[in-house]
Amino acid sequence: MKNAYVHGYDQRENIRLKDQAVTLVDLLHSDTAFPAGSCILEAGCGVGAQTVTLAKKSPDAEITSIDISETSLEKARQNVASEKIANVSFQQADIFDLPFAPHSFDHIFLCFVLEHLSNPAEALTILKSFIKPGGTITVIEGDHGSAYFYPNRKAAHSVIQCLIDLQKKGGGNSMIGRELYPLLVKSGYQSVNVSPRMVYADSSKPEMVEGFTKNTFTAMIEGIRESSLNAGLINEKTFNQGIKALYRTTEHDGVFCYTFFKATAVC
Amino acid sequence: MKNAYVHGYDQRENIRLKDQAVTLVDLLHSDTAFPAGSCILEAGCGVGAQTVTLAKKSPDAEITSIDISETSLEKARQNVASEKIANVSFQQADIFDLPFAPHSFDHIFLCFVLEHLSNPAEALTILKSFIKPGGTITVIEGDHGSAYFYPNRKAAHSVIQCLIDLQKKGGGNSMIGRELYPLLVKSGYQSVNVSPRMVYADSSKPEMVEGFTKNTFTAMIEGIRESSLNAGLINEKTFNQGIKALYRTTEHDGVFCYTFFKATAVC
Repeated sequence: MKNAYVHGYDQRENIRLKDQAVTLVDLLHSDTAFPAGSCILEAGCGVGAQTVTLAKKSPDAEITSIDISETSLEKARQNVASEKIANVSFQQADIFDLPFAPHSFDHIFLCFVLEHLSNPAEALTILKSFIKPGGTITVIEGDHGSAYFYPNRKAAHSVIQCLIDLQKKGGGNSMIGRELYPLLVKSGYQSVNVSPRMVYADSSKPEMVEGFTKNTFTAMIEGIRESSLNAGLINEKTFNQGIKALYRTTEHDGVFCYTFFKATAVC
Repeated sequence: MKNAYVHGYDQRENIRLKDQAVTLVDLLHSDTAFPAGSCILEAGCGVGAQTVTLAKKSPDAEITSIDISETSLEKARQNVASEKIANVSFQQADIFDLPFAPHSFDHIFLCFVLEHLSNPAEALTILKSFIKPGGTITVIEGDHGSAYFYPNRKAAHSVIQCLIDLQKKGGGNSMIGRELYPLLVKSGYQSVNVSPRMVYADSSKPEMVEGFTKNTFTAMIEGIRESSLNAGLINEKTFNQGIKALYRTTEHDGVFCYTFFKATAVC
């Protein structure tokens, strides 16, 4: 799993992940707030891109944020410290080997984690055993198969497909958003509710064009240039055309659509 | 244009279009209401599937609903009469040759019309000349390229592609939803605002699974079986597999996503 991880481990990615988090805060997180005194596990916090928002939205909850990577955790600690947040404690841990007692948490929160796992249903089942009865899980994932745009250029689809293929080769699934409902039901959760969160960016919404289409989505695809070429998934000319076609959707008459999925379920 | 029309002209389609209208009323129309005394043109009312909702949401507006097909208008008259609606008058007319004085209407409303036209920007430009200064246009279209689902079967994409291809062959564009912003800007409208309306159907939302995935979307694709086979777009086996794959998304663990686009703009 660690070797397969396709984003999150370099400085430019760190910046991109923070840009993404800022642009998408309202869309993804506005309806997540946990009660005072509740114990929350953030599983797979990475560089803490969502941790800051999570902690600010639930200032009186106690948040434990774990990640398998000590390098990421160090950045997460810095992110949280720079925001003067006091209700988060970090701990290095593996979702598949958690150092907690069963039913330790009132709620579990995962954002952009399942997409990297080869066994997301197993992860959800394990996490369930750490939630108190009646507690909840909140899961947020993207779905790269939900990206469409105007002008609708083939090369743009080809570069997106590179990311889908790379993530699949690494055991992940970048089209997992649409699967949250069956995954949670299969893992034994109750009252599963999935809410799609669509990003729509045209030039009347310049903050979304900049913050999402350019600095989040296209930046992410640009970040897989070398891996895609090295893996023989695409040739350089087509890759360049694809990136150009993605930027073309950010011009005055361009449109870009993408959907995230947010699920909540009861243990 | 008339010969190219791929749905709307037979009895089963009439029922399907009414099913679709009922399921989607809130999603598409809840925020459309015109002031008392205002004059509204519904351009391309078809069998009146949206006319009833339009008239009920704006009971004190005067609505003129036109369509090029007298057969469709006759059904629209019946639909409206059976609902005891009194603020709609029907008239046979061609969008490209309207029998009205310039600036006759306060607002114009079009729903599922531009997708059938080979020159949608021209239609929008013409319609603009019939709106009073400061009046608005409201446009609603689907986008068949926005359909994705779980399980993600190739054959399902193939049958959807048949409809996209058939509509394209007829001069239409079934992926026009994403283009509403550039089309309206290009046609000279101001303050263009596009709002995507995503349908998300999993088995926790049985009314959407029945009303949309089965009785609207899959029924529409089933309706193009003969035309697709006759046009040589697909073989019968793949078509059957595709329909089966679409129904598969309506099972207990299935998910279906589709997005409509609603635009408003000022003249």
